[in-house]
Amino acid sequence: MEYRNEISYAAIRRLPKYYRHLCNLRKAGIRQISSKELSFEIGVTSSQVRNDFAYFGGEGLPGIGYNVDLLKNKINEFLKSDNTLNMIIIGAGYLGHALAANKNLEKKGFKVIGIFDPYDQFTGREIKGIEIMKMDCLPLFIKRQHVDIAAITILSAHADEIIKDMISLGVKGIWNFSPVEVKNTDKVMIENSHLDDSLMVLGYNLKNK
Amino acid sequence: MEYRNEISYAAIRRLPKYYRHLCNLRKAGIRQISSKELSFEIGVTSSQVRNDFAYFGGEGLPGIGYNVDLLKNKINEFLKSDNTLNMIIIGAGYLGHALAANKNLEKKGFKVIGIFDPYDQFTGREIKGIEIMKMDCLPLFIKRQHVDIAAITILSAHADEIIKDMISLGVKGIWNFSPVEVKNTDKVMIENSHLDDSLMVLGYNLKNK
Repeated sequence: MEYRNEISYAAIRRLPKYYRHLCNLRKAGIRQISSKELSFEIGVTSSQVRNDFAYFGGEGLPGIGYNVDLLKNKINEFLKSDNTLNMIIIGAGYLGHALAANKNLEKKGFKVIGIFDPYDQFTGREIKGIEIMKMDCLPLFIKRQHVDIAAITILSAHADEIIKDMISLGVKGIWNFSPVEVKNTDKVMIENSHLDDSLMVLGYNLKNK
Repeated sequence: MEYRNEISYAAIRRLPKYYRHLCNLRKAGIRQISSKELSFEIGVTSSQVRNDFAYFGGEGLPGIGYNVDLLKNKINEFLKSDNTLNMIIIGAGYLGHALAANKNLEKKGFKVIGIFDPYDQFTGREIKGIEIMKMDCLPLFIKRQHVDIAAITILSAHADEIIKDMISLGVKGIWNFSPVEVKNTDKVMIENSHLDDSLMVLGYNLKNK
């Protein structure tokens, strides 16, 4: 099997989608899939699929296709960290609750170890056994515990200041749901997750259908 | 000013990002921006920016750049529906609550008109004045009210059945947060919003930093 040496950033972004689809196929008892079928399911061309998988040495066999299990495991191994990544959630509103209560995150290797909120109303309450703490407690918490990722679920422009604080406290990964747009630097990796972007695209598509 | 006749799907996907950034610039009192500055902020090339905006007839003036207000309004006009789009939320868990409570959605032209949950525990309760109803009420509700979009916030594989029901009830737009992957058909437009995809990419980036 041939391995390509580099994988593009766009291909990495597609991997969670492939992975989810391969998991669904496996649940349905499907063991082999062609690049053509995958391309149809994922919404890219067959040659794009073959190109994406070339990196994993996963060449589909002619007339048989890719081994679903093998490919699924390779993608998982590629994406997943060797260790569980520790995550804190900033903002104990509904979205913060939704992330803290999402069991899939732990299965995928992310563990919520603390929840922080700027408002006192939540202090001392718990979500799934994790205490909600005041923001004042954050510097000490980060000093004592290893925090890999801060999920920012505060949906106001004030999130900007909070993100700056996180970076200066040494948090290396930010999962940002706030309307503020933040970019990677040499100190921090950012993923911006603006929920209503996809809704705006849906609205456009409905208008122009 | 010259207008291009077609805009690519990839460009449409970038428009909410441009829009958010132009709004931030406006708030900061910045009136003009060059394609180079925008490209840096958005993370695409300058020529990509110019290409994206060619469709709007928005050519930046040499040495001055784009008019922030004008461009912002054009993008808004392009994306936004003429009428408010009516949305129902399926699933009254934390994520359903988060969407119902998000004031930005109404500002962007989407109005939540009903919330439905398969479990009785929530029935009769309200989120922001909107009653939570049983799923049994859905067919009659859709018959009587105009529903443009159903936001699926049920994070289990059962969402598959619910999405099929929505489509057969005539809902034209699905904003899908469930782990099920759904595709556009001639009957329905879908936006899949898988929150943990971006977290997996962040995990990968932290591992390989």
